[in-house]
Amino acid sequence: MVEAQEIELRGHIIDSGNMAQLMDRVMDMGGNFETLVFEIGKKKTDPSYAHLRITASSKEKLHSILSDLHRLGARPVEVKDVFLVPAEADKVVPKGFYTTSHHPTQVKFEGEWISVGAIEMDFLIVVDTKKRSATAMPLGKIRKGDLVVVGEQGVSVSYPERPREQSTFEFMHGTVSSERPSQTLIAKIAKEILEVRKNGGKIAVVGGPAIIHTGAAKALASMIHNGYVDVLFAGNALATHDIEYNLYGTSLGMDISTGNPVTGGHKHHLYAISEIMRAGSIRNAVDQGVIKGGIMYECVKKDVPFVLAGSIRDDGPLPDVISDTMEAQDTMRKHIPGCSMVLMIATLLHSIAVGNCLPSSVKTVCVDINPAHLTKLMDRGTTQAIGIVSDAGTFLPLLAHQLEIQSGHQKK
Amino acid sequence: MVEAQEIELRGHIIDSGNMAQLMDRVMDMGGNFETLVFEIGKKKTDPSYAHLRITASSKEKLHSILSDLHRLGARPVEVKDVFLVPAEADKVVPKGFYTTSHHPTQVKFEGEWISVGAIEMDFLIVVDTKKRSATAMPLGKIRKGDLVVVGEQGVSVSYPERPREQSTFEFMHGTVSSERPSQTLIAKIAKEILEVRKNGGKIAVVGGPAIIHTGAAKALASMIHNGYVDVLFAGNALATHDIEYNLYGTSLGMDISTGNPVTGGHKHHLYAISEIMRAGSIRNAVDQGVIKGGIMYECVKKDVPFVLAGSIRDDGPLPDVISDTMEAQDTMRKHIPGCSMVLMIATLLHSIAVGNCLPSSVKTVCVDINPAHLTKLMDRGTTQAIGIVSDAGTFLPLLAHQLEIQSGHQKK
Amino acid sequence: MVEAQEIELRGHIIDSGNMAQLMDRVMDMGGNFETLVFEIGKKKTDPSYAHLRITASSKEKLHSILSDLHRLGARPVEVKDVFLVPAEADKVVPKGFYTTSHHPTQVKFEGEWISVGAIEMDFLIVVDTKKRSATAMPLGKIRKGDLVVVGEQGVSVSYPERPREQSTFEFMHGTVSSERPSQTLIAKIAKEILEVRKNGGKIAVVGGPAIIHTGAAKALASMIHNGYVDVLFAGNALATHDIEYNLYGTSLGMDISTGNPVTGGHKHHLYAISEIMRAGSIRNAVDQGVIKGGIMYECVKKDVPFVLAGSIRDDGPLPDVISDTMEAQDTMRKHIPGCSMVLMIATLLHSIAVGNCLPSSVKTVCVDINPAHLTKLMDRGTTQAIGIVSDAGTFLPLLAHQLEIQSGHQKK
Amino acid sequence: MVEAQEIELRGHIIDSGNMAQLMDRVMDMGGNFETLVFEIGKKKTDPSYAHLRITASSKEKLHSILSDLHRLGARPVEVKDVFLVPAEADKVVPKGFYTTSHHPTQVKFEGEWISVGAIEMDFLIVVDTKKRSATAMPLGKIRKGDLVVVGEQGVSVSYPERPREQSTFEFMHGTVSSERPSQTLIAKIAKEILEVRKNGGKIAVVGGPAIIHTGAAKALASMIHNGYVDVLFAGNALATHDIEYNLYGTSLGMDISTGNPVTGGHKHHLYAISEIMRAGSIRNAVDQGVIKGGIMYECVKKDVPFVLAGSIRDDGPLPDVISDTMEAQDTMRKHIPGCSMVLMIATLLHSIAVGNCLPSSVKTVCVDINPAHLTKLMDRGTTQAIGIVSDAGTFLPLLAHQLEIQSGHQKK
Repeated sequence: MVEAQEIELRGHIIDSGNMAQLMDRVMDMGGNFETLVFEIGKKKTDPSYAHLRITASSKEKLHSILSDLHRLGARPVEVKDVFLVPAEADKVVPKGFYTTSHHPTQVKFEGEWISVGAIEMDFLIVVDTKKRSATAMPLGKIRKGDLVVVGEQGVSVSYPERPREQSTFEFMHGTVSSERPSQTLIAKIAKEILEVRKNGGKIAVVGGPAIIHTGAAKALASMIHNGYVDVLFAGNALATHDIEYNLYGTSLGMDISTGNPVTGGHKHHLYAISEIMRAGSIRNAVDQGVIKGGIMYECVKKDVPFVLAGSIRDDGPLPDVISDTMEAQDTMRKHIPGCSMVLMIATLLHSIAVGNCLPSSVKTVCVDINPAHLTKLMDRGTTQAIGIVSDAGTFLPLLAHQLEIQSGHQKK
Repeated sequence: MVEAQEIELRGHIIDSGNMAQLMDRVMDMGGNFETLVFEIGKKKTDPSYAHLRITASSKEKLHSILSDLHRLGARPVEVKDVFLVPAEADKVVPKGFYTTSHHPTQVKFEGEWISVGAIEMDFLIVVDTKKRSATAMPLGKIRKGDLVVVGEQGVSVSYPERPREQSTFEFMHGTVSSERPSQTLIAKIAKEILEVRKNGGKIAVVGGPAIIHTGAAKALASMIHNGYVDVLFAGNALATHDIEYNLYGTSLGMDISTGNPVTGGHKHHLYAISEIMRAGSIRNAVDQGVIKGGIMYECVKKDVPFVLAGSIRDDGPLPDVISDTMEAQDTMRKHIPGCSMVLMIATLLHSIAVGNCLPSSVKTVCVDINPAHLTKLMDRGTTQAIGIVSDAGTFLPLLAHQLEIQSGHQKK
Repeated sequence: MVEAQEIELRGHIIDSGNMAQLMDRVMDMGGNFETLVFEIGKKKTDPSYAHLRITASSKEKLHSILSDLHRLGARPVEVKDVFLVPAEADKVVPKGFYTTSHHPTQVKFEGEWISVGAIEMDFLIVVDTKKRSATAMPLGKIRKGDLVVVGEQGVSVSYPERPREQSTFEFMHGTVSSERPSQTLIAKIAKEILEVRKNGGKIAVVGGPAIIHTGAAKALASMIHNGYVDVLFAGNALATHDIEYNLYGTSLGMDISTGNPVTGGHKHHLYAISEIMRAGSIRNAVDQGVIKGGIMYECVKKDVPFVLAGSIRDDGPLPDVISDTMEAQDTMRKHIPGCSMVLMIATLLHSIAVGNCLPSSVKTVCVDINPAHLTKLMDRGTTQAIGIVSDAGTFLPLLAHQLEIQSGHQKK
Repeated sequence: MVEAQEIELRGHIIDSGNMAQLMDRVMDMGGNFETLVFEIGKKKTDPSYAHLRITASSKEKLHSILSDLHRLGARPVEVKDVFLVPAEADKVVPKGFYTTSHHPTQVKFEGEWISVGAIEMDFLIVVDTKKRSATAMPLGKIRKGDLVVVGEQGVSVSYPERPREQSTFEFMHGTVSSERPSQTLIAKIAKEILEVRKNGGKIAVVGGPAIIHTGAAKALASMIHNGYVDVLFAGNALATHDIEYNLYGTSLGMDISTGNPVTGGHKHHLYAISEIMRAGSIRNAVDQGVIKGGIMYECVKKDVPFVLAGSIRDDGPLPDVISDTMEAQDTMRKHIPGCSMVLMIATLLHSIAVGNCLPSSVKTVCVDINPAHLTKLMDRGTTQAIGIVSDAGTFLPLLAHQLEIQSGHQKK
C-alpha cells in the first residue's frame, strides 16, 4: 500500500535552500515525491511555487515525513483546522502534542489563520477558543483543561528565508571560526547596534564574570552609560565580581590593574556580597554610595533592568539574585519582547538560557573564547546566532570604542 | 618602624613545598624573615620544625602577610583565642570575617583547640560557646547573633602535605593534559574505586547529559547496578535525556544506536518530560513500568539517592528537579559527608557546584573533553582534582569494563 | 549594458542543493537569472536539468559570476575548447590560470572531453596536446613551455551529489561535535574499514605522537599487524616515541604502564633516535633485533610503507625522516592513488597535509581531542571529512576491538 | 647493600623551591637522605647551603637519583672532570650521553669550569680539548671523533632561581588562563618591549597566518615599521596570506575589510605565490613595486631578516621558503643569539620550533586563542613562557596602540 498526501510550498524556496532540504528529507526518510507543479520565479524578486505529491509505504511513515516537512514551511494543499485536546491535569498533556520551533507560527482555527503569540522553541500551543487567540506555552505552565494543539494539522510555520539583500548582519550566521577579521566584525556589530537603536529596537546583553576577570567591565559599563543596553541578563558571579572590582579593584582576588593576585584577595568576593547584604540590595548599595561605579552601578543609575538568575554554584548569593530557576526564566521572558538584538558575552549557561527564549528573528551575536561553547549554543537551537571566537577583554573595549567613533560620525 | 611577629611551622614542610611557598610569599609581599630555629627532619619520616621572625614596614603590611601565611599552615608562636563578633542581623556579618579554605581547620577557644565541622571553601566559622563547638557556614545562613570568627587569630589550618608514599592516586593531581595513557589512568581509577569501596567510603558521581549523547548511559547504569555509585548529582538534562533514551532510543533526537537524527526526534525530550509529569515522579514512573532501564531506573531500583539541581536553561523541568538553587545546594550538601571519592563526568556547572562543597581530602576525578573546563574547575579551588581530557563515550564503557575485570580478580 | 551568458546544469541538482547554491551565488554577486528550461526529476531516481540565462551589468562581473558557478558544476550551454598558454619559465605561469578543486574534472580539447589526472586541490591543469592527456600539477612543478589552462572555459567539474542511498558512511560528514555516540561511530568505522578491505581499496593512516602518549600504540600496531593499514603517514615524533616506547616503555619520558614520569626519561627520545642512527634506519633496527615491537616494527614486518615527513620542530631526526618538505609531499602523493579511506588520528599538521592531496571521493575520518583542529581541517578544504572529537587513547583500542569482533562475525 | 653519595646545593634554594623539589625527587625515586649541613640564609639576600647524603638500595638506583638531582642544580661534593668519549661515526654517539637542559651549564675539564656555548634543550655537549671550549650540539651534527660528554659527572647546571624582585615580567610565567585582564597584560608587554629595546636586546616575532585572517596584519606591519621587531620567524602561509592581502585585499579568499568571501578568492593565495615566483623573491617583488605594503614589505624595507620555514602542508611554496626543515632550523638558530624577548602569535608549529631553540633566560610571550596550544608549548619545555589566551585580531592592534602611547610618554 502506498499512502500519499499533496503539499505545497511558496516563496523564495529555491534560493533559500528550502526546496532542496525538503526533497532531501523526503528521500532520507524513505519516502518518494512527484512534482505536480513547479513554477520557478523567473527573476530573483519573483516567488516560486511547488506542489508535490509525497508518498510513503505506510501511514506512520507518511505521517512522520509530513511532520518533518512541516518545519520547513510546507503545508497540505487543503489545510484542516488544528486538532485541540484539553489537558487532563496541570502539566499533564495529551500524547502527540505539537512542539513549536522558534519561527513565526500560525494555527488554523475555524477556518481562520491565527498568529501564535509568545513563540519560543519547544513550547506547546494553547488555543483560547473564546478569544480566538493562540499562545505558545512551556509544558510546565499548562493547566488542567487548556486546549492544546496535537499533531501538525492546521499549523503553519514561516520558515525564515535567506534575506535577498545582504544586510550588514547576515554575513555569516550559523558559523563559528576564529579565523575572521576581528576588527571588521566589531565595526559591523557597532553599526548594527546603532541601526537597531535608531529603529527603536531593544538591545539585551547576556554576560558572564569573565567580562570582569578580563578587564572589560569598564567598557560594558560605558556602553550601559551611553544607552546601548536595555536589559542585562546575568548571574550572581557577574554582579559579584563587578562589585568586588569596584570596591577592592580585584576580580576573583586578582588586581585588574596589575594582573597580580592580591593578598587576602580570595575573600574579596565574599566581602562584596556581604556589603550588599548589609545594604539590602544592589540598588540600595548604589543609593547609599557603597558602590560608586561599574556595570551594576550604571544599570541602577540608568534604570536598565537586570535579571540575575541563580545557579547551583553560587556563593552568597546577592539579595538580587532570583534563586528559583523557573522564576528566573519567567522574569527573563518578561524582558525579551521588543528585543531586536542580543549580545552574549563569555557565558555558556546564560547564553543558552536566553537563546532558548528568543524567536528566530532576533539578531544574536555570541562572543566566547571557546569555540565549543559557540557550537553548543547553535546545536541547542539558536541557529540564528553569529559566533565570534574572541577574548572579552579585548573585544568589548574595541566595541565600545567603535560605538563612540561611529556614533560621533552619525551626529555630524 | 619595623613590625615583627614570630611564627612557627611544623611537619613535612620541606618536601611538601610549604616552607618554600611561605618564604616566597613573605618576600613577594615586601616583608622579610629571619630564621630563628630550623630543625630539618634527618630522615624522610621525621617532621621538620621552623621558627621564623617575620618583619614588615607597617602593621597593615605585617597583618596581610600573616594572613597569607596562615593559609599555608603557619601560626603565631603564641596563639590567642579566636576573636568572635555577633552578626548584627540575618546575613549581615562583621567586616573582616574569616573565610575558610577547604582544608581541615581548628579554632582556639578558651585555650582549647576545637575542630571546625562541615568545612567547605569560602564559608564563615560560627562558634557555639555553650556547646564549645565550631561550624563552617555559608554567608547566607548566618542568623542574627551568631558568633562569627573575625580575623585569622586563633585559627589553625592543616595544609595538606604531599603524601610520603605515592599512592595509586596522587600520581598527578592538579594537572590537566590530554597526553596521558588513557587506559592506564582508567585502570588506576577502577582500582581506586574498588579500594574506596572496600574501605567503606562513599562514591559520588556528578554527570552531564553528554553521557547520554555519547552513548555511555549503559556503562554508567551498569556501574550503579553493580553498586559503585552511592549518590548521583546531576541536572534536569541528564535525567531527561536518560529517560528519553530509554523511552525512544534517542538523545536530543539522535538515535544512539545509529548516530542518525530521527524524524520528530526534537520532540522526544519534551515527550519524555511529559511522561514523567503524568506519572508524578521518576520513582513513580519506574514503579509503573514506564521506564524500564537506564541511569535513573537503576538509581531508583538500587535506592541510590539522586539530586537533580535546577538550572536557568531547563526545559520542563522534571518533577524531581529542585528548581531553587539554594535548596538544591543544601540537598547536595546532605549527601557529601562520608564521600571519599567523586567522579565528575562531562559537566562544568555541576562539577564546580559539587567541587565547591568538597573538603580537600576527597579524591576527585574530573573527565571532560574540553581541557578549559578542567582548568576552570581547578582555578575555582578544587585543586585536589585529577583532570582527564577524554571522551565520556569511550571513557565510561572502558571504566565499567575495568571494574568488571578487576573486581573479578579480587573475588578469586 | 547588460551582459548575458546561458548555462546549463544537470543531475540531482535539487536535492543536492546545487541549484539553490547556484541561484544564491548569482544574486549574492549582484547578477540576475532567468529560467529558460527547468525540468525537475519526477521521481527521486530521475536527474533534473536546468537551463538559465545569467546576466550582469558588466563583462567583468559576468565573468566572475560564471567562474564561481563553474565550481558548482554549471557550464556554458555551448562549451568551447580550453584556453592554453605556455609557461614563460619554470614556475612562472600566465595570469588567470585555472586552479583545481578536488572533485573529478574534465577539459574539452579539440572538441573532446578529457579527464584530468592526479586531481588535487589548488593545482593547475597542464595539457599534453600530443598525448591528448591532461594532468593536475602544483605550481612549483610547472616547467617552461608547459601548456597551462587559463580561465574556466572548456573545464567541467563534477560536483559531488549527495548520495541517494544513505550508506554507512555519509551519516554526518562535514560536521564536528563531541555529542555523538562514540561506540556507535566506532562500530560504523570498523564496518567501513572491513567493507573497503573487501572491495580491495587501500586504507591510509595519518597519525601523531599523541597515539603513543595516550597509550594507543598497541592498538594501532595490532591494526597494522592484522592488515588494516596500507600506508602510514606521520612525522619524526610518532616514529621516535613509538620506538622510545618499545625500547624504554616510556613516551616523552612517561611510563605508559603507570602514567608516571620516569627518572632520566627526558633523555629517552634522544637515546631512541641515537639507536636508530647507529643502526642506519628503522628497517635495519628491526632486522638487527633492536626494535622488537610497535607501530614501526609492524610496518617493517608487514611491508607497509611509511612516509615520515620532516618538520621544523624535529629533534634528531631519525634517518628515515624526509627533511625536505617538498620531497616529502611528493613521496606522500605516490602512495595516495588507490586509497579509498584515510584515518587521521591526533595530528593537525599531517592531517591537513594529507587532506590537501586527497580527491573528494576518499572517505576521510579525522579523530582529534580538539574540535578546533577538526574545524580547521574542513576549513582548509577537506570538506568530505567526518570529524570525531575523541581521545586517541580510548578510541583506537575500541576500534581495534570492533575490528576483531566484526571480522570474526564475517568469517562465519 | 646501601649505596651513598654526598651532594651539595647552594643559592636561594629554599625560596626557589629547589630544596623542596630535590627532597621530593629523592623520596619519589625510593631513595633516602640525611641532612649533614643545612645553613639557611638568615635574610632574604643571603644564599643558603645544604650538604646531604643520598642513599639508595643499588648503584643503578643511586645513579638515576643523582642524574635527576643534577638537573636541579645539585652536584657531588667533590666534582671530577667530565667524562669524554669520541663519537664512533657521524651521528653515532656513545650510549649514556649527556643531554642538556636549556639552562646555563658548565663543564669541569682538567680541573677548570668552562661555560657551555650555544645552550639549547636536548642537545649533546662536545668539548674541544685544545681550545678548552665546550659547545652544545644537536645529535644530528655530531661528527666522527667529536668528544662527547657522557653521564652527569663534571657537569653543573645553574637552575634558574625565582627572581627576588618581581619585575614587570615575572608576573605569571608558566601558567595559562583566559581569565586575566587582557589590556593590563598588553600594557605590561608593551612596557617590556620598550625596556628590552632601551637595553639593546633583540626582539623576535614568531607568527602564524591567523594574524592575517583575523585582520591584524597592519598592526604587526606597523610594529616592524616602528622598529620593534628584529627578526621574524614564520612559514609559507603567513608570508603568502600577507602578500595575498596586499595584492587582493583578501586572506584565504575572505575580504578583510568586509569579512565576506570574495568571488574567485580561493585562487588568490596561489596567484600571490605566482607573482612572487615571477619576481624571483619577496625582496625582488618589493623592489619592483609588486608588493606595496604589509608585513613582508616592512621586513624588506626595514632590513628585518625573516626566516620562512617549510612545512609539509605548504602550497607553492614561495621562493623564499626554506623547504628543508633541518636547514631552516639552522637558519633560525643563527638569528637567536642576542634575542632577549620572543613574541609568539597564533602558531603552534613555529612556536614550539623556536621555543626548542631558546635558552631559558629569553622572555617569551605566547598568544593563542586555543589554551591547549599554550599548554603544549610549555609541556614541550618552553617553561619560561607566559601564555595568553586571546585573539590575534584584537590583541595585536591593542599592543601596537600601547606601544605608540607608551613610547610617546617616554619621549617627553
